[in-house]
Amino acid sequence: MASAKFTVFQPVPVPSGPPEYEAQRASILAEFAAKVLRELFLPQAVFDSAPRNVTAIPRECGLLTAEELAITENYDAVTLAEAMRTRKLTAVAVATAFAKRAIIAHQLTSCLSEWFMDEAVARAQELDAHLARTGITVGPLHGVPVSLKEIIPLAGHTSSTGLLVTRHVDDADSQLVAILRAAGAVFYCKTAQPQAVMSYESASPAGRVLNPHHTGLSAGGSSGGEAALVALRGSVLGIGSDIGGSVRGPAALSGVYGFKSTSAALFPIHDFVKGGFAATMTVPAAAGPIASSLRGIDLFTSVVHAARPYLQDPSLAPLPWSGLAGTGSAKKPLKVGFMTHDGAIVPQPPVLRALAWARAQLDAAAPGQFETKDFAPYGSAQVMASQRAAYWPDGGRGLKAALAAAGEPMFPLTEWIIRDGAAATEVTGEMSATGVLALRVARDAFRVAFAAHWTAQDVDVVVCPAFVGPAPVHETGLYWNYAAFWNYLDYPGVAVPTPVTVLAKGGEGFAAEHAVPLSDECRHVRQLWGEGDFEGAPVGLQIVARRHHDNELFGALHVMKEALGLK
Amino acid sequence: MASAKFTVFQPVPVPSGPPEYEAQRASILAEFAAKVLRELFLPQAVFDSAPRNVTAIPRECGLLTAEELAITENYDAVTLAEAMRTRKLTAVAVATAFAKRAIIAHQLTSCLSEWFMDEAVARAQELDAHLARTGITVGPLHGVPVSLKEIIPLAGHTSSTGLLVTRHVDDADSQLVAILRAAGAVFYCKTAQPQAVMSYESASPAGRVLNPHHTGLSAGGSSGGEAALVALRGSVLGIGSDIGGSVRGPAALSGVYGFKSTSAALFPIHDFVKGGFAATMTVPAAAGPIASSLRGIDLFTSVVHAARPYLQDPSLAPLPWSGLAGTGSAKKPLKVGFMTHDGAIVPQPPVLRALAWARAQLDAAAPGQFETKDFAPYGSAQVMASQRAAYWPDGGRGLKAALAAAGEPMFPLTEWIIRDGAAATEVTGEMSATGVLALRVARDAFRVAFAAHWTAQDVDVVVCPAFVGPAPVHETGLYWNYAAFWNYLDYPGVAVPTPVTVLAKGGEGFAAEHAVPLSDECRHVRQLWGEGDFEGAPVGLQIVARRHHDNELFGALHVMKEALGLK
Repeated sequence: MASAKFTVFQPVPVPSGPPEYEAQRASILAEFAAKVLRELFLPQAVFDSAPRNVTAIPRECGLLTAEELAITENYDAVTLAEAMRTRKLTAVAVATAFAKRAIIAHQLTSCLSEWFMDEAVARAQELDAHLARTGITVGPLHGVPVSLKEIIPLAGHTSSTGLLVTRHVDDADSQLVAILRAAGAVFYCKTAQPQAVMSYESASPAGRVLNPHHTGLSAGGSSGGEAALVALRGSVLGIGSDIGGSVRGPAALSGVYGFKSTSAALFPIHDFVKGGFAATMTVPAAAGPIASSLRGIDLFTSVVHAARPYLQDPSLAPLPWSGLAGTGSAKKPLKVGFMTHDGAIVPQPPVLRALAWARAQLDAAAPGQFETKDFAPYGSAQVMASQRAAYWPDGGRGLKAALAAAGEPMFPLTEWIIRDGAAATEVTGEMSATGVLALRVARDAFRVAFAAHWTAQDVDVVVCPAFVGPAPVHETGLYWNYAAFWNYLDYPGVAVPTPVTVLAKGGEGFAAEHAVPLSDECRHVRQLWGEGDFEGAPVGLQIVARRHHDNELFGALHVMKEALGLK
Repeated sequence: MASAKFTVFQPVPVPSGPPEYEAQRASILAEFAAKVLRELFLPQAVFDSAPRNVTAIPRECGLLTAEELAITENYDAVTLAEAMRTRKLTAVAVATAFAKRAIIAHQLTSCLSEWFMDEAVARAQELDAHLARTGITVGPLHGVPVSLKEIIPLAGHTSSTGLLVTRHVDDADSQLVAILRAAGAVFYCKTAQPQAVMSYESASPAGRVLNPHHTGLSAGGSSGGEAALVALRGSVLGIGSDIGGSVRGPAALSGVYGFKSTSAALFPIHDFVKGGFAATMTVPAAAGPIASSLRGIDLFTSVVHAARPYLQDPSLAPLPWSGLAGTGSAKKPLKVGFMTHDGAIVPQPPVLRALAWARAQLDAAAPGQFETKDFAPYGSAQVMASQRAAYWPDGGRGLKAALAAAGEPMFPLTEWIIRDGAAATEVTGEMSATGVLALRVARDAFRVAFAAHWTAQDVDVVVCPAFVGPAPVHETGLYWNYAAFWNYLDYPGVAVPTPVTVLAKGGEGFAAEHAVPLSDECRHVRQLWGEGDFEGAPVGLQIVARRHHDNELFGALHVMKEALGLK
């Protein structure tokens, strides 16, 4: 029986603010709930008896028909598009199924910031009518539901930079959204991101986003809502953004796929944040798909690339896109470097096990296909210290003012991520132009040095952790180093899942070779591992290529697909 | 008869400084002169009776043999490489001829900052020996002399950023130089640039660089020495750099070819300036060839591209290079927009005449080959004001301190170019990180708006002025708008010469359609035209394409070559 009240599962509440702030939040929640038909409310019993892995609940809760379960569980973006093109499925059936499953996912993990099934179904009706009338689809994404991270402007819907004072309704689609819409995509929800879009604890107005595989753990950030939604199959294709691992981290922690491209290459983001984002003066941001398959990511990228987005957004270099099917796969053998740790933090045991598994899989492949080797870490600790300061050239003053303006409480991880920037500017005040230049010069010098390091290691791609562990316990996602390092370098990277045989197990310890922690941060990561309960959490890995070598990355993924069991 | 003293023609001396500074300058000059054999001193009579157009003097002065004249006058970079590959010419003969002609050019125009014939000839001997021994060249530039702007690091030679305190000997080649060296290039001189590398008045330690076609006029900047040297055929291929027109302007003013590529695409510059260049936070810089032919530019670009410079310098996007022979020429008809003026300053009469000539040439070509149209100006005045401030985020404080440290007098044009930046930061002090971000956000928004403007105008390339007039009278090169505008947009552009029929003539007035000045700056440009004597100065034009469309630009140049009489 459906509950009388729209409830979002929230075992560990977010910090609360003063009454004015909580009143605003309640009003946003009421507005959200008012759009949800009571028949889509999960029964209270579900919450009362929820297992910590909630991924089976959408199937078991009884709110979805057999067809809706089939649509949401048996397809990815590529096969959905194909099924609608060949009229095996209607766009209305697809939009309905994913919208319903998304609102179930939200009740379980707080993964949405907005939900608009009516609009999606109306758009799907138009698409079905168009296909019936003309015999042709409107484009390669005809009817494919696409979820969007809250920050991405969608006409008529709410976006923000994770701060209440920036919350507003956009009057136009961002360029990226317009391309997808013209290709036939159906939009039905927006997904939760962290405070200031800069931490590993995503939160919707309803509360923190839970990891669907283990609700005691974080879904990561900043595209945590997106990844949780895809993991619950409330979406097969969503768009996040990544300036420190925000696509790859959450994707890895929820066992799905995520792609951060080289910035200023494939995906237009110029119209995401009015007024700009100071961190990008040193660390480039990129939009990126989170999906249930690599093929889905490839389809998304092909569609955006075919629209020649660089003609409208001249920040993008018009590089070719060959993707999984392309020329990037020609290397024989493919030289794969394994960076087991970054020299600063040894990852937690399941991650080490995942890396060993992946290397063994490649080594067991047909002779001559792969050459695996160790990849020596280089400069990671130095980069992370510089990068954390570079994220906040104003020392976080603007952020604090924005929070204060809405009486919004600062989350612990927000306080943590601005700490280095605040310390660096405590005496002098906001960083000067000369200070920004120095950060950029240091970054560019490091990029040149690292390119030489990569060349000397003689690899085509590197496999490394996507995060220091499986999903962290809530409020402990401190060390994004493994993903953020590649943002500083602007190298493209893909997070991929590993099989259930690699899931985190309780009680795993460190092998003798890693007995001694490499740093205080390394020691803290071990402490967190010892204190937490991660049993059953999935482990993702990250595969990266040189800057602007996105095609080589996808060519390599194509070649590695079978050995690593990628979809 | 050779003079007893090494003299550099200097009708209009540069500002002098206090004794310590002048002593240093004298020491640099003495060191320079000591390397020059007395037999290469120009006779005093040449200076006493020099016409204002000095381009015939190298031929007439008697210091070059018939073979040396043939080598320096009858070849471009492409045919020189071919002649050495086929052993029609030796590398020693070529190096000797160009080194000799370069030192003659320097005595006439002060175009060099350094000259090292001995080293060049020694290198040429090695190359000749290599070819004799192996039967093959060391690379596609085997024996081709390449001149370098002072700022570009060359192992064992002096570079600076146009300030005495930054003058130093480099211990390693910059990446760009190393690529050219590996391809067989022979280095023999470095060329003069302006104070702070940021004005239209270039100067070597010997004094201001004179325009070879008219010594009463400037050679432009900041690659003014390079352009003057190529115009005097003391080089067929040199490298400059461009953040406000520094390659295209001087090339146009001296009647040669210059190419500013899209930044971060073709040519590595990461190791040009240690400590970085604050202006590039908003306005990207690019290295670029200045040459006696488009073919020479194409050869240079092909050689650098073939070295895959992006593997060492990850700031470069690995875009393909098809050049003159490539796919960029496929457009039929080629849509050519003519921007007669930028809405802020109407160019001086010879430039308007050059534009009309070029349009008439295209209109007279085979039917269907070209579609010429007006290109409406857009935002030029706004851009120039923003850009001048963006060049100096510290308000010029660092520059002033560097000048003071050496007792170096500030040139009038240096004072002028820092004025907007100084005014913008007079009260607040150096710009803040937030200020830099605002400049970047405004720039990116303008780029998006201009891309839409370009799309709406429906053109493949735009032909426009390279400068507001022919070469300016010394110390009056104030308005670089026509070139700098494209730096702000980061569009690639090539300066090309027009025929002698278009040379500046005295007494030309403005047509009725341009009777009313568009702005105070426009009025000033007219006043300068009325006051100056420009008779016989060449007029270059600029041809630009969208950002990252360097191949389309060269494809278009290939198609336009015959109609515009390009080499």
